[in-house]
Amino acid sequence: MKKIHKIALISTGGTIEKTYNAFSGLLDNKVSVLDIMLSQLTLRGVSLNRVQLMNKDSLEMTVRDRELIAFTAEALLESHDGIIIVHGTDTLAQTGQKCFESIQKLTGPIVFTGAMRPYELRSTDALQNLTEALMAVQILQPGVYVCMHNQVLAFPHVKKDKDHLCFIKDES
Amino acid sequence: MKKIHKIALISTGGTIEKTYNAFSGLLDNKVSVLDIMLSQLTLRGVSLNRVQLMNKDSLEMTVRDRELIAFTAEALLESHDGIIIVHGTDTLAQTGQKCFESIQKLTGPIVFTGAMRPYELRSTDALQNLTEALMAVQILQPGVYVCMHNQVLAFPHVKKDKDHLCFIKDES
Amino acid sequence: MKKIHKIALISTGGTIEKTYNAFSGLLDNKVSVLDIMLSQLTLRGVSLNRVQLMNKDSLEMTVRDRELIAFTAEALLESHDGIIIVHGTDTLAQTGQKCFESIQKLTGPIVFTGAMRPYELRSTDALQNLTEALMAVQILQPGVYVCMHNQVLAFPHVKKDKDHLCFIKDES
Amino acid sequence: MKKIHKIALISTGGTIEKTYNAFSGLLDNKVSVLDIMLSQLTLRGVSLNRVQLMNKDSLEMTVRDRELIAFTAEALLESHDGIIIVHGTDTLAQTGQKCFESIQKLTGPIVFTGAMRPYELRSTDALQNLTEALMAVQILQPGVYVCMHNQVLAFPHVKKDKDHLCFIKDES
Repeated sequence: MKKIHKIALISTGGTIEKTYNAFSGLLDNKVSVLDIMLSQLTLRGVSLNRVQLMNKDSLEMTVRDRELIAFTAEALLESHDGIIIVHGTDTLAQTGQKCFESIQKLTGPIVFTGAMRPYELRSTDALQNLTEALMAVQILQPGVYVCMHNQVLAFPHVKKDKDHLCFIKDES
Repeated sequence: MKKIHKIALISTGGTIEKTYNAFSGLLDNKVSVLDIMLSQLTLRGVSLNRVQLMNKDSLEMTVRDRELIAFTAEALLESHDGIIIVHGTDTLAQTGQKCFESIQKLTGPIVFTGAMRPYELRSTDALQNLTEALMAVQILQPGVYVCMHNQVLAFPHVKKDKDHLCFIKDES
Repeated sequence: MKKIHKIALISTGGTIEKTYNAFSGLLDNKVSVLDIMLSQLTLRGVSLNRVQLMNKDSLEMTVRDRELIAFTAEALLESHDGIIIVHGTDTLAQTGQKCFESIQKLTGPIVFTGAMRPYELRSTDALQNLTEALMAVQILQPGVYVCMHNQVLAFPHVKKDKDHLCFIKDES
Repeated sequence: MKKIHKIALISTGGTIEKTYNAFSGLLDNKVSVLDIMLSQLTLRGVSLNRVQLMNKDSLEMTVRDRELIAFTAEALLESHDGIIIVHGTDTLAQTGQKCFESIQKLTGPIVFTGAMRPYELRSTDALQNLTEALMAVQILQPGVYVCMHNQVLAFPHVKKDKDHLCFIKDES
């Protein structure tokens, strides 16, 4: 195992990055809290290249957004050992599938992660999921994965289970 | 990758489990806070078998303690996919070395973890390290490792760097 | 000063009690988190009588709701040393004014409090404000007050400053 | 009630300010965390003058230390509406008694506070106690008090109950 893994961390928004707006009383994607999360972790295994691509609720992502994410991940993989993509969970599976289908040379792992509860909440799953992705990206074989809630699933055939707020393999 | 990994989680004490005693004003190993930590994580990838072996500051561990830990890990490996051992960092490297040398059939990974700052502190590294170990144990090849601070190091030749409060490979 | 003050704690909802709904991605008033907050405080000066009157966003409160709150506070004041009312901030000033105008015998303090950021957020002001109200209600003279953000304001002529997310005296 | 109260906040150390030393594994009084605590509170009722007098475990305070604290509090009272003194709980009662006996002109309240569990712990009482003192100092009549755990006790005849980790009136 390498001492330091060169990882690109692409952020696209999603619940994990939502912050509370005390004026409107709503949670929205305005500022990125990824750097605050990262500052709470001790990172000795990775050298991170932060790429803030967009900050969107993933329900609002377009086909072009997904193409941009896949294209960016593929380009960054040429100069990095692995990619982490922070993404809203509602359409994470579609973007993951897009990456799986369109990226030709998978020379390292592409690990999607996100959260069901924003980092701003005291009972968030954001730090757990980010921590897991930052570990898994160092160990996993080349491929496209979603990593959260202590579980790694490999694309294709991944979907969100909206009743249980998790990801599952779609065996149908 | 398996859907659910059967993991034995052996706790032995150490800084990670120290709690504050308001009467003495000291941090000591009296009760285990591992279950509190685990209750804050969403665990979909592992089925945990909790084995509370001892609760010691690792500076107070004896040769027999290390033999007991290695023996227990070896025995549990027969019926589990991997082992996590929560251990004080001061002598973690010795116990890891002992496991590496004495365990004959390594059919899965044995992952040591611990913390430099007790879970009870708001600025602890305990949750990060436990989260990482719970992820790494599902992906790593058979072997003996220490996993914390976003880094996995494989035994042998691991030691604690007391100046930087981390683990390093001893290349000397 | 009395050793133990008998206090009625009336909860009516508001931002302070909003919880995150991971299915809808919204913050709403469904369950009360006041008991969780109270469990984190050491309370030696008060004996609390919890009265869960309603759980509403205060923008949805009706004239009848405010009458009910004032009537309940007045009735409870007969058997308690003071009253705390947890209330949404958007219309807190109206309910406070209603109490000030309609309650005849103010034998103890009625202290309103609330929060600009829900308790569920890690950067909440809820615990600060509740702690302050629980202290002020033991010391204040009879009257109707709002207590939050380290400030006590006495009714009448209190209003919310929506630009600065605080309460001020309306000197106009 | 005044709009803004001019308050001197004298810090002397104690458990409330202890921080964790990861090298020694001990909690000690090296840096003050009071400013970190204050940064988490919204303070609209007070204008604070921070006076960092010493940073000691109160078991190590000398007679001269207590004289210095009382003298400083008296001097600051001339130009402030009230004084808060953050102090270790083990000998807080002695220093409070010293202030009660030696200060001639009590033109405002002197409010002692501290903590049984350091701020650095996630289950601390430090923020609660500091929040309470910052509220009580605005409302209390001139006098010397200890304010923590939702309780205000007036000197003289205050002592620490070491079995229950709180302060009580010594009626003996």
